[in-house]
Amino acid sequence: MAEAATPGLPPRGFPPEEFAARCSKAQEMMAHAGLDALLLTTEPEVRYFSGYLTQFWQSPTRPWFLVLPARGKPIAVIPAIGAECMARTWVEDIRTWSSPNPADEGISLLAGTLTETAGARGRIGLPKGPETHLRMPLADFEALQRRLPDTTFADASDILRALRMVKSEAEIAKVAHICGIVSEVFESLPGLLRAGMSQIEIFRLFKTECLQRGADDVAYLVGGAGADGYGDIISPPSTRPVEAGDVLILDTGSVFDGYYCDFDRNYAFGRAADDVRRAYEVVYAATEAGLQAARPSATCAEVYRAMQAVMDRGGALGNDVGRLGHGLGMQLTEWPSNHPEDRTRLEPGMILTLEPGMAFAPGRVMVHEENIVIREGPPQLLTRRAAPELPIIA
Amino acid sequence: MAEAATPGLPPRGFPPEEFAARCSKAQEMMAHAGLDALLLTTEPEVRYFSGYLTQFWQSPTRPWFLVLPARGKPIAVIPAIGAECMARTWVEDIRTWSSPNPADEGISLLAGTLTETAGARGRIGLPKGPETHLRMPLADFEALQRRLPDTTFADASDILRALRMVKSEAEIAKVAHICGIVSEVFESLPGLLRAGMSQIEIFRLFKTECLQRGADDVAYLVGGAGADGYGDIISPPSTRPVEAGDVLILDTGSVFDGYYCDFDRNYAFGRAADDVRRAYEVVYAATEAGLQAARPSATCAEVYRAMQAVMDRGGALGNDVGRLGHGLGMQLTEWPSNHPEDRTRLEPGMILTLEPGMAFAPGRVMVHEENIVIREGPPQLLTRRAAPELPIIA
Repeated sequence: MAEAATPGLPPRGFPPEEFAARCSKAQEMMAHAGLDALLLTTEPEVRYFSGYLTQFWQSPTRPWFLVLPARGKPIAVIPAIGAECMARTWVEDIRTWSSPNPADEGISLLAGTLTETAGARGRIGLPKGPETHLRMPLADFEALQRRLPDTTFADASDILRALRMVKSEAEIAKVAHICGIVSEVFESLPGLLRAGMSQIEIFRLFKTECLQRGADDVAYLVGGAGADGYGDIISPPSTRPVEAGDVLILDTGSVFDGYYCDFDRNYAFGRAADDVRRAYEVVYAATEAGLQAARPSATCAEVYRAMQAVMDRGGALGNDVGRLGHGLGMQLTEWPSNHPEDRTRLEPGMILTLEPGMAFAPGRVMVHEENIVIREGPPQLLTRRAAPELPIIA
Repeated sequence: MAEAATPGLPPRGFPPEEFAARCSKAQEMMAHAGLDALLLTTEPEVRYFSGYLTQFWQSPTRPWFLVLPARGKPIAVIPAIGAECMARTWVEDIRTWSSPNPADEGISLLAGTLTETAGARGRIGLPKGPETHLRMPLADFEALQRRLPDTTFADASDILRALRMVKSEAEIAKVAHICGIVSEVFESLPGLLRAGMSQIEIFRLFKTECLQRGADDVAYLVGGAGADGYGDIISPPSTRPVEAGDVLILDTGSVFDGYYCDFDRNYAFGRAADDVRRAYEVVYAATEAGLQAARPSATCAEVYRAMQAVMDRGGALGNDVGRLGHGLGMQLTEWPSNHPEDRTRLEPGMILTLEPGMAFAPGRVMVHEENIVIREGPPQLLTRRAAPELPIIA
């Protein structure tokens, strides 16, 4: 539930009206799709409709279920340990079992709830499509299907995708807030980093700065550093000290109230080779092209092509990332993708990363990333724009 | 792969021999179970056999597959973005596809690899049981089954469970290291906390201290605070300032090199009511009973009963957590459970939490937690034992 705001910060949580709006939009789409209920099992899906926010999901022991009926509020079917935390959300119907109980890990309670909600011959929607998974033991899902032999479990990914891709102003405010905090930290780094620090020390310093400036968590921090460029942007930090001539990238998903930023910044130590500087300028220019292309009713494929054209002209040798940005919000990455095959049409309220990246020499890549929200007219930058030239740390 | 150790720290990674031993033990069990290959899809499963460590798993966009054949090294079937990071592990056969590609998100490549490894009529094991899930879109798994109509997908949870429950000395050293760091932080807190700080400030300070003392991440931090006790131990921090008479619990899963601690500490501010002090002493004594009971060949149920008996005598009103501790290692919680129905026999090398908790008044609970490793004879404490009396912060 929404908490009183600290001055200068977006309020934590959301008012009940926001959850009611999410549910009724979903229910409209369910009616069109002929679905009697939705069954949700993952953290963002459950949180989206309930407001249930806890890191306890990191324990794989217990499944958590939220059932959204055709009308009315969602029903929580959860382990007893979560009852008190769930009772602080807008959800009223909270059904619990004592967990762990591998012999019946909520399955009989869930089966009863589904039958009561959707009937014995109901059609239950659950997300089965791209970027989703079922967070419960597969054997338990098989047992659920055996218990409900006349129930159909249909794919409801499209409903979740359509709803979650377009953010409310309250959601945008949370992402904007964490983007602002992390932008400040990135801008302060040249004064804090020096050659000789190990990547592990740099990561630790970065996380500490983010926390001290108001991030709830630095849930995701990856990066790379190497002489005249890095080859890999998803690795944990190494113990190797950064040296003059190294290029360092840090890419973070930091969090405020359950909402992520996801962007990176590059730094050279001491000096930067000409091809490194040029590559930086190319991906910077590609981001500019992305900012120009990201307009309502443009497709993600068009945004991709606008950025890729700049990199092709700039001598790009390819890119293992497989796309040039993606949706963002309750998760580090969400639908859609800036990918040549993604025909999603942009709408106001969608939060995207623009993430042009390219290999500019064998084994050396350069990746930029900014976070934007689609508006009528030009998009709004949520991150403070990176420097147009590669920052050099003396 | 193992990196050179920083003095005083356990080495990062593991030598290839450790992965080879894990694989050959799994392959022995696979032979007994009549399985031609294992298919692994989650972060800890893939990491256990490969050493592949990256936070990139937080992005739900791309599935990752590891196939363990009946003989030889595992085969990685992964998105191209992971190739360079995977190439630094002991895995040699790395097959990639350009991802995201929702039309064929690795499924044809995986199907080919499974057929090549297990034959067209193979039996593939994958974890389907308690505390597991399948981390790929359900529709893609259904498509895989249609592509391999003569392949059987059987439950292999028991193999993963049996292997991962018993830790090597190298694994134990990582958990011991993070337990030591966090024990220091907990011991320093009375000098750092004061009434008037919000829970959010306290959480931020705790995380910063852990990072500065050498934690890689404070991946999990939950807690609660309330007048004369807390009612809920899985919630995020609130903006409410802590007041005199409050009892605060912090429960953390902090990480070193991909291995977790999981323990908590309690503090009272200014003063503590008699029933609060008594409850603390009861759960402290219950932990002592757990330390006495946790011997090789004792069952988890026996450890549970030893602790619960102390709490029953101490006036426990029940416990929503559903168990009194659990396994620990690559995940915040792992098999087994200190639960009346868990007949797992303890073996040297198992890492467990002892986590006695009880409601001592309506809506008020007290929970303790220590981390131990089972040894011949008495267990070894990995955490520094909590104070025998509730610490009071002046």
